[in-house]
Amino acid sequence: MNQFSIVGKDVPRNDARAKATGSAIYTDDVKLPGMLYGQILRSPLPHARILHIDTSQVASLPGVRCVMTGEDTPKVKYGNWRLFPETQDEYPLAIDKVRFIGDEVAAVAAVDPDIAQEALSLIKVEYEELPGVFDVDAAIKEGAPVIHDYCPSNISVNRKIKYGDIDKAFAESDYVREDTFHVHAVSHAYLEPCAAIAQCDLDGRITLWTSTQVPYIIQCLLASTLQMRENDIRIIKPFVGGGFGGKMELRTWEFCAAFMAKKTGRPVKFTLTREEEFLTGRRRHPMKIHSKVGFKKDGTLTAKDLKIYLDGGAYNAMGPTATFLCGNFGAMLYRYPSYRFHGQHVYTNKPPASAMRGFGAPQSIFATESQMSLAAEELGLDPIDIRLKNAQVTGDTIPDVATISSCGFIEALNKVAEMSDWREKRKTLPKGRGIGIGCYSFISGGVFNWFNTQYPFSAAEVRAFDDGTAHLLTMAADIGQGCDTVLKQILAEAFGLKMEDIRITSADTAITPQADLGAWGSRLTLMNGNAVLDAANKIKAQLFGAVSARFNLNVIHEIECKDGKVYPKGRPDRSLSFGEAVAMAQKINRGEPLVARGYYTPRNKGLVTPSFSFGAQVAEVEVDQETGVVQVQKFWTAHDCGTAINPMAVEGQLEGSIQMGLGYALSEQFVMEGGKTLNTNFLDYKMPSSMDVPPSEVVHIETYEPEGPMGAKEAGEGLAIPTAPAIADAVGHATGYRCKDLPITPEKILRAKRES
Amino acid sequence: MNQFSIVGKDVPRNDARAKATGSAIYTDDVKLPGMLYGQILRSPLPHARILHIDTSQVASLPGVRCVMTGEDTPKVKYGNWRLFPETQDEYPLAIDKVRFIGDEVAAVAAVDPDIAQEALSLIKVEYEELPGVFDVDAAIKEGAPVIHDYCPSNISVNRKIKYGDIDKAFAESDYVREDTFHVHAVSHAYLEPCAAIAQCDLDGRITLWTSTQVPYIIQCLLASTLQMRENDIRIIKPFVGGGFGGKMELRTWEFCAAFMAKKTGRPVKFTLTREEEFLTGRRRHPMKIHSKVGFKKDGTLTAKDLKIYLDGGAYNAMGPTATFLCGNFGAMLYRYPSYRFHGQHVYTNKPPASAMRGFGAPQSIFATESQMSLAAEELGLDPIDIRLKNAQVTGDTIPDVATISSCGFIEALNKVAEMSDWREKRKTLPKGRGIGIGCYSFISGGVFNWFNTQYPFSAAEVRAFDDGTAHLLTMAADIGQGCDTVLKQILAEAFGLKMEDIRITSADTAITPQADLGAWGSRLTLMNGNAVLDAANKIKAQLFGAVSARFNLNVIHEIECKDGKVYPKGRPDRSLSFGEAVAMAQKINRGEPLVARGYYTPRNKGLVTPSFSFGAQVAEVEVDQETGVVQVQKFWTAHDCGTAINPMAVEGQLEGSIQMGLGYALSEQFVMEGGKTLNTNFLDYKMPSSMDVPPSEVVHIETYEPEGPMGAKEAGEGLAIPTAPAIADAVGHATGYRCKDLPITPEKILRAKRES
Repeated sequence: MNQFSIVGKDVPRNDARAKATGSAIYTDDVKLPGMLYGQILRSPLPHARILHIDTSQVASLPGVRCVMTGEDTPKVKYGNWRLFPETQDEYPLAIDKVRFIGDEVAAVAAVDPDIAQEALSLIKVEYEELPGVFDVDAAIKEGAPVIHDYCPSNISVNRKIKYGDIDKAFAESDYVREDTFHVHAVSHAYLEPCAAIAQCDLDGRITLWTSTQVPYIIQCLLASTLQMRENDIRIIKPFVGGGFGGKMELRTWEFCAAFMAKKTGRPVKFTLTREEEFLTGRRRHPMKIHSKVGFKKDGTLTAKDLKIYLDGGAYNAMGPTATFLCGNFGAMLYRYPSYRFHGQHVYTNKPPASAMRGFGAPQSIFATESQMSLAAEELGLDPIDIRLKNAQVTGDTIPDVATISSCGFIEALNKVAEMSDWREKRKTLPKGRGIGIGCYSFISGGVFNWFNTQYPFSAAEVRAFDDGTAHLLTMAADIGQGCDTVLKQILAEAFGLKMEDIRITSADTAITPQADLGAWGSRLTLMNGNAVLDAANKIKAQLFGAVSARFNLNVIHEIECKDGKVYPKGRPDRSLSFGEAVAMAQKINRGEPLVARGYYTPRNKGLVTPSFSFGAQVAEVEVDQETGVVQVQKFWTAHDCGTAINPMAVEGQLEGSIQMGLGYALSEQFVMEGGKTLNTNFLDYKMPSSMDVPPSEVVHIETYEPEGPMGAKEAGEGLAIPTAPAIADAVGHATGYRCKDLPITPEKILRAKRES
Repeated sequence: MNQFSIVGKDVPRNDARAKATGSAIYTDDVKLPGMLYGQILRSPLPHARILHIDTSQVASLPGVRCVMTGEDTPKVKYGNWRLFPETQDEYPLAIDKVRFIGDEVAAVAAVDPDIAQEALSLIKVEYEELPGVFDVDAAIKEGAPVIHDYCPSNISVNRKIKYGDIDKAFAESDYVREDTFHVHAVSHAYLEPCAAIAQCDLDGRITLWTSTQVPYIIQCLLASTLQMRENDIRIIKPFVGGGFGGKMELRTWEFCAAFMAKKTGRPVKFTLTREEEFLTGRRRHPMKIHSKVGFKKDGTLTAKDLKIYLDGGAYNAMGPTATFLCGNFGAMLYRYPSYRFHGQHVYTNKPPASAMRGFGAPQSIFATESQMSLAAEELGLDPIDIRLKNAQVTGDTIPDVATISSCGFIEALNKVAEMSDWREKRKTLPKGRGIGIGCYSFISGGVFNWFNTQYPFSAAEVRAFDDGTAHLLTMAADIGQGCDTVLKQILAEAFGLKMEDIRITSADTAITPQADLGAWGSRLTLMNGNAVLDAANKIKAQLFGAVSARFNLNVIHEIECKDGKVYPKGRPDRSLSFGEAVAMAQKINRGEPLVARGYYTPRNKGLVTPSFSFGAQVAEVEVDQETGVVQVQKFWTAHDCGTAINPMAVEGQLEGSIQMGLGYALSEQFVMEGGKTLNTNFLDYKMPSSMDVPPSEVVHIETYEPEGPMGAKEAGEGLAIPTAPAIADAVGHATGYRCKDLPITPEKILRAKRES
């Protein structure tokens, strides 16, 4: 990797100083003259027919400027799968029915938030309560209450995958095991609650500042729900305090802010409370996972039959994608000669589950990894050895998915084994202490075009100037994950410039080039990075022509940009400064500025993703024999994200992932009763704090991903996968209790101890 | 002109509703968190050496955050003629010397404006007073005080033009006359005083919102004076309440706001008071004009020898351009077989004169027109006949300047004669009533590249979308003259769309395409309009390809965009909607959005301008025989601006021009004493109000300018020229008094009456 100057170096994040000094402007910090404050009236019932809404008393409250219900809207359903309109099942405000506690029924805008709050109490809604269903078993039972009329089975999405002769493979297996896993919902718990502020200009165009991961998707869906033209909507993403998948759809408050801004002529702002976030917000899909796997005696995998029910809550949200991906994640990481998958997305009367860091993989791979360790035990093999035997390698093909063009999985397995002293500890740790492993593979963005965009998946515009600077414009959304920094690094590297030479403008749909699908599926480094490189290369071609002409070079010379200069390779003495080369290229173009647009769409890359990350993590735990409390002593991680463009940012991702994985494994859960979430604040919802995070060691496995920009692939989500299975494996090692229904609570451990 | 759908139609200005409803954001309306308020300490003396500045007491005043003097700055001189660095004579804050009352000496920034004001009184400046000079005669006298050391003669610019054998031509003339004219300074009196607010981001980049006509020029000059890179500076032009030439240079408060924002880390705003504007602001050049013209007996012009001294005040400002242009204006309008010009720009200890609507032409052409009427009288000809005899026509050449590619001057002369019943009234009006004529020709932007830009003179980016909309991005500065509207019309016409289908983003140097030289010299309609058309045509080429492929058209077909459709000419039945054509072109490009940049630089168009406007105006006056008060009864105007893109906006220009011309002719002047301006408010500075403006009739002479976009040329400044000479001619006709030293005050008329 030493060919790089800036790529691969630790670079402070572009947003670090603004956030540290408090000068970062988040959506709620946007204040416009004459601004109104919006509030949403939500359903108190999990399932009911709306008989009547009376808003007549609201208008009499001084300070109220607007009240709206579903009846006032154009009644257009939305959802991110617009390629399949039948999956779009949500209205901005409920029409006819409410389907979960918190479902949005009406909205008001008033001159201050307290008046808006008071106005909500003046809206009278008459409901006819209907029986609710709260888990997948109840929902798919014959005669269960139907949540959406169009979907009598309550199963909104079916996804099947099959390859190889699976029945034959099981028949010929030496060892087959079947397990059922239950994984639970957890919250994104982003620090910044959702917020949006809309302004309608005098031409009737809408500008919406919103805390989102997907400005372009919001633009499109807001246009269709408002029945406006896409380009009469402008989405601006201010600083965002985390998303983790929870801010990647159009949401009610975005629609209502825009609708009421248009109606009142005044800006309208919504900012959710933490209580609203916990009570009604998106969350990770709970799943019921039934997995059957076959092995040869030596541990070689023969077959896998995977059946997953996703508990989607009241609406599809990102559930179809999770359903789709679970099937792919089930076949990743190891070589499955035959494979069958059936995923079903089930409606229940709960807040919709949706995308959350890992997008189905933390659930699906929890099952994979648990079974690999269980099988190893049964077959008398070391859990790492059974993984090494089946591990995917560079060049492997996943049917219907892709060829793996880079893979450091085996190296990662060997490395964590070595770092953690695995083979010794797995044999010798005393009772109550355990060591466990969890592995992962993840996608670097999606190939599936369910959003049906007409644009390339990623785009970038690069402007190069004769003062030795460049300007990068991209619709990519930095939501705290650091893509502004990474994209600047890629451009700085390509141009041989420094970070301070690059200006970046991002995530403004009226200004930055069409389009970028947003921050999800760990797509930005690879996809937008490739678009940036494409644009940079178009400009470099012009600079190289200028340098070639200036020094009258033989056409065989390759030219490069490095250290602020442009020169024939190996001849830095014959150089122009970057600015001089730009000036010359500009003269060649009779003054026209040097601007290029670059694009990336992953064609010919199968159905799922252009590249795969890999990694392995070992956790060592101590389980208190009296209380059942699990204390993780240490993590060791070895991961392969291709070229780590910004190693410090990758480490940040790892730290955050471990914190999230800890919570997922041990402490976080929604406590619910009859569809109602009972723990709606950070006191009752038990997220690990920084004090709970154990020490951690990490090794970066060096690979070079040919499809990625400068060899890079994903580093943002895969790392969120291995922690829960590693802890579960370590707890199993420490106690003999193998948890198949997350989270691993002290109660479960003690109950298992009692029962054994 | 009936080939157009939107061009040539009255279209409400893009900014009309925002301004009428009060929602327009001007620079002073920009409010940023933690903002400081700046104030400038100005020289109380017209000419002095600065011996010492003591700012030590300022820091002790609570609330003051920054104080700066010229010594703190990088000491880089600025000026718009950067091609000739010797003409750049101004520092952001005075160094060593002050040269006029109001010259900027120091600046402070404080948490509120009152504290900043108080802080100024704590700055102690020790001056050594020097003798001042206050008019050109005194300034160029042998032994006069030297204002700038580099320029012992006080003459900073010499400009000479010569063609034809002028001495022979005078010798062969039947009639030669010589006159000396004095024209005076007037104020731009824009409604919005100058203001600027700067913010320094955490990367050290500056964003400056400023009330300016020239965002790009401010960007460049701010960069050089701060010794920063051009592209680390971003200039945003909010709504601007008028400029008229007074906001086309970098100014002290722009520099100081940026400098102190960088130093304090907080935004810094300056807003000038009206008193500061009148006391120290730029103004129209006073000039002493000596003109000798020769004629044949029949009125045919033979020669002109023009000598002009421009009273530039303390710094060059835009004086070099005015000096340069005066020479060209002197040879425009009529056919001069031989011509000689000598212009001299003279320093005096007064506030710098600079560009003002007409840029030297109101002065130069006042002399031209006065002499034409005087000569007509002497030769026994009708003033209109002598003009008709000498009028320029299409195809005429002005040596070293251009070939006139469209000219409606003769038609305009005939038209005003007819409209005003000229021939009858010139003979029969009773004593005390008079009718007079004034004519003009003006440039449509400049060819001269004294700013030495590396970019095309104008640029536009156009993005076309499949929802049937388009987005226009341009650095062109709408300062109230309506160019945003005109540019949108041009694009709407080119695409066959409606005004509401076009979004425009303008005048943000970090976002809109490099570059545009700004709003001056009536350049934007022609130059930026051409850039917009260039971009539109590049996109149309793609749409036409798509339509041609879609309908399998014979290659001979021409295709057009009209009424929201794209179709082969004459076959609107075979059409795609604009959006469908874009969608298809996008598919052809595998999803890449349709974006194009267009440029315009007036190559091969001589030295001055690519095209010329023409016009004639008749004024009828009544002069009170007792008081000498002149009352204009009516104006008749016939003008040739090529295609009037937005006739309503052209009429607006005419109305404003008449109001300004009235003031210039009759009432406005700076009353000065020892370099000090005494009338510094709208009570004492006598601008005509709307009640003072007489009725007016206008006829638009239809021509088609081949170099202009859709046949257009300038309409913004030429109209400001004829009013003063027309009134002077009418007063002469009414009273026999021919004013050669504007303004035409009652005192002068009565004095002339007494003397005759």
